[in-house]
Amino acid sequence: MTPMDAILDAISWDEQGLVPAIVQDHRTGQVLMLAFMSRQALEATLATGEAHYWSRSRQELWRKGATSGHTQRVVEIRYDCDGDALLLYVEARGPACHTGQMSCFYRRLEGSGAGRGK
Amino acid sequence: MTPMDAILDAISWDEQGLVPAIVQDHRTGQVLMLAFMSRQALEATLATGEAHYWSRSRQELWRKGATSGHTQRVVEIRYDCDGDALLLYVEARGPACHTGQMSCFYRRLEGSGAGRGK
Repeated sequence: MTPMDAILDAISWDEQGLVPAIVQDHRTGQVLMLAFMSRQALEATLATGEAHYWSRSRQELWRKGATSGHTQRVVEIRYDCDGDALLLYVEARGPACHTGQMSCFYRRLEGSGAGRGK
Repeated sequence: MTPMDAILDAISWDEQGLVPAIVQDHRTGQVLMLAFMSRQALEATLATGEAHYWSRSRQELWRKGATSGHTQRVVEIRYDCDGDALLLYVEARGPACHTGQMSCFYRRLEGSGAGRGK
């Protein structure tokens, strides 16, 4: 088993061979997006230091920013207690969202709490 | 259709009727955990202001902190551009993780970037 295999085996991949990855700006702490990674996506991310994901709609490996130029340099990856979720701290070179918003989470759900007040 | 139905219909539920929910401390910005919500969990969360999730391992609705006392008051919920992920800003009354760590993401994946340096 290679060191890369050992790292990839630390993750509990789901029945589709994917793991959800939370992407957070390492400076501001803003949560930018939720994406999914395949083994191949995680391997490519570790090898290059640039975020790669698995597109479930297109069913293909996807280097973030390949067309938009809004790439993400990966500063650190964490995994959770169950090993079935990842947290990526990234340096985002532009908006994470295809709408042009910095974060994909730009809409507040009606009726959810008092709000952050800022 | 009630207002609650309209809110719940804004979400793209997956084939199991769930949506992943990123849980973030609203003050520190620390990402605490990734959980899943069913319609019933989101409805209970909106109705009570306390975080409820769907336990995939136990296949049951679960009020966070029901046994540990480490409940989460929901300050705001956001949903992403595709409507298939939630972001909860919470006030955490104790550690989010069953290990006693504040965050479930307490382990760094080997070989992932240069690290945050802090």
